Amino acid sequence: MVVIKFGGSSVGTIEKIKQIAQQIAKRKLKDKEIVIVVSAMGKSTNALIELAKQTSADPSVRELDMLMATGEQVSSSLLAIALNDIGVKAISLTGFQAGIRTEGIHTKNKIVDISDHKLRGFIEEGNVVVVAGFQGINSSGDITTLGRGGSDTTAVAIAAKLNCRCEIYTDVEGIYTTNPAVYKDAKKLSEISYMEMAELAHLGAKVMEPRSVEIGQKYSIEILVASAHSKNSGTLIKGANTMLEAKVITGISVIDNVEVVTINNYPNSSKSVSELFSRLANNEVNIDMINQSVINKDLINLSFTCDATELKTVKKIIDELIKLYPGFVANTNLKASKISVVGLGMRSQSGVAAKIFKLFALNDISFQLVTTSEISISYAIPSNLVTKAVAVIAKEFKL
Amino acid sequence: MVVIKFGGSSVGTIEKIKQIAQQIAKRKLKDKEIVIVVSAMGKSTNALIELAKQTSADPSVRELDMLMATGEQVSSSLLAIALNDIGVKAISLTGFQAGIRTEGIHTKNKIVDISDHKLRGFIEEGNVVVVAGFQGINSSGDITTLGRGGSDTTAVAIAAKLNCRCEIYTDVEGIYTTNPAVYKDAKKLSEISYMEMAELAHLGAKVMEPRSVEIGQKYSIEILVASAHSKNSGTLIKGANTMLEAKVITGISVIDNVEVVTINNYPNSSKSVSELFSRLANNEVNIDMINQSVINKDLINLSFTCDATELKTVKKIIDELIKLYPGFVANTNLKASKISVVGLGMRSQSGVAAKIFKLFALNDISFQLVTTSEISISYAIPSNLVTKAVAVIAKEFKL
Repeated sequence: MVVIKFGGSSVGTIEKIKQIAQQIAKRKLKDKEIVIVVSAMGKSTNALIELAKQTSADPSVRELDMLMATGEQVSSSLLAIALNDIGVKAISLTGFQAGIRTEGIHTKNKIVDISDHKLRGFIEEGNVVVVAGFQGINSSGDITTLGRGGSDTTAVAIAAKLNCRCEIYTDVEGIYTTNPAVYKDAKKLSEISYMEMAELAHLGAKVMEPRSVEIGQKYSIEILVASAHSKNSGTLIKGANTMLEAKVITGISVIDNVEVVTINNYPNSSKSVSELFSRLANNEVNIDMINQSVINKDLINLSFTCDATELKTVKKIIDELIKLYPGFVANTNLKASKISVVGLGMRSQSGVAAKIFKLFALNDISFQLVTTSEISISYAIPSNLVTKAVAVIAKEFKL
Repeated sequence: MVVIKFGGSSVGTIEKIKQIAQQIAKRKLKDKEIVIVVSAMGKSTNALIELAKQTSADPSVRELDMLMATGEQVSSSLLAIALNDIGVKAISLTGFQAGIRTEGIHTKNKIVDISDHKLRGFIEEGNVVVVAGFQGINSSGDITTLGRGGSDTTAVAIAAKLNCRCEIYTDVEGIYTTNPAVYKDAKKLSEISYMEMAELAHLGAKVMEPRSVEIGQKYSIEILVASAHSKNSGTLIKGANTMLEAKVITGISVIDNVEVVTINNYPNSSKSVSELFSRLANNEVNIDMINQSVINKDLINLSFTCDATELKTVKKIIDELIKLYPGFVANTNLKASKISVVGLGMRSQSGVAAKIFKLFALNDISFQLVTTSEISISYAIPSNLVTKAVAVIAKEFKL
């Protein structure tokens, strides 16, 4: 049994849907039991969102979910039609029909369980089951969507429930040591551990969403990421315990359009600090890297990063706080990029951070913030230095 | 409480959806509890069918239903967004969420019941509930559609379940005595009985599908048919017992593109006759008017009408039969129109048929077939004589 996911560009036109159907027909000769998960055709989700925005500047998220879910319903039924047309028994299911039960806030739901009896029934009847990705149903019976990378999550969650392999076909050939657009000598990895992949995904690698990798890890589902258009082998995401040797560094990821916010001479009290972070949280500002240093018993310096789109909200919060705590100085105009170095081997091999600090110093690469986790180190650096930074790290660690 | 249905052209663009939302907001000041049923935007259902046809010459009807149902899901969520935008609490529901339970063959399902607890819950919370028309869910959990006029059926069925009035807003001002495009002096009726409306609908008046009229009649739900674009009063479809006086003739309807098939010298046996009609039924040819006359104990003449699109199938069946029963003569090239005269008053007033026969003779209007029901008389006549026939009947009966 296998769960195979095709992204939006793989089903972007009727012609492409027919090609995918042919691919599945061939695959059916090898694998008896196939579940397909599809995204919406090409840019159709964006077109639906555009309709909603023309209707209202601030459309209800419940209704947005209702609207967006139609995109995958269209592509899944068309793929089932294309499969039937070439003699492959197939049936399409919406998220709710496939038993995808979700919870959370609309447009960002999470899968809590899959009631898979219906899915299994159709598989046992010999159908290729085509599931509309990205969507589910919550306990109130509302249609929900799973946010960015939602169709990947659908695919991996179904594979976890059916305890089978998952294959994600996409526009890229697999997972690269770093973005080939930034560093042309980037190499494709033949395999990567769940932890490294999740870290890379969290840190901006756009191939896989962290959530689906985490589900794969939790249920030990091997995930192949490969190109829908080539016969190359792709990258297998799997458990570190099944890999021969952990590399010190597996990959480098870059997130652009990061805003570095610094707040100096801020009152040093738990109340004033929590006032800042709770306001950021209440306004749904995702803050990422955080640095705090104490000046004296009364004052601290704080820095953090957030997405550039959230700058307006951050400025509003700072304006509120300065009324409460006059005297601190905020700087909110530092455009940056976040570069992250990820590798399981960091756990056992010390000195990686030191090596990179030294590399940066030697190459005049300044950074505003640095944070570390068990298997990654991230730096906020001026955006114009990203290419140089990636190149020196890749060269040093032979990526 | 009121159920209001808007057709595809009323929600054809975002601009129109916003206008409808304004209309509903005004209406909400008067009626506390409002359920809206919408069709798909403009020609979007046709666009979806076109995609399916590009994918397969013979798409599976189950998948077609899955595909087509997205059209109303899009329009219902957009209308809910538009209502929320102007401060009207609103929520959209798909067919299955609204509890529309159906049975039958895909693309032509019938509503068997409505599980309305969810619908009532949302109404009680003060929502304008926007239901996606034309769709439901069958006992297997498959998404189904209701065929032509399906959104009207959804609206009337919900009104029946909630025991309230139903209003159908459409492109026309109401029900006319006959098609104004055929007879320019046609008059709009202020009211019409269920029976007459059903008969007119069966006989080709395209304003309402017979099914929704029948549901209205069964549950005594008054149905207003009116223009979405004007303040004119429309036509109220209601019980004959609530009407002051039944007219002899209420309306004239015309169906074009009718094929008259005549079969002469056909063997006069129950086996041979059933062989013909069972083959027609098995091939899903809808035959309409039927006439049979006995020549002698061995031979009969048969005539019937069917839709011109079914002629190819009919010819194939005749070719098969001529091998079984050589010797009969079939004629399948008589293009005609069916003109029907409908009126409750026919039941009590005799001589209507005779009067029309006389009118036709005086005006040189030939006819190939005639059939009568309790409240209607239908004639198959050459298409070029339709305008003349409608005019003479309308003038005689002051329509």
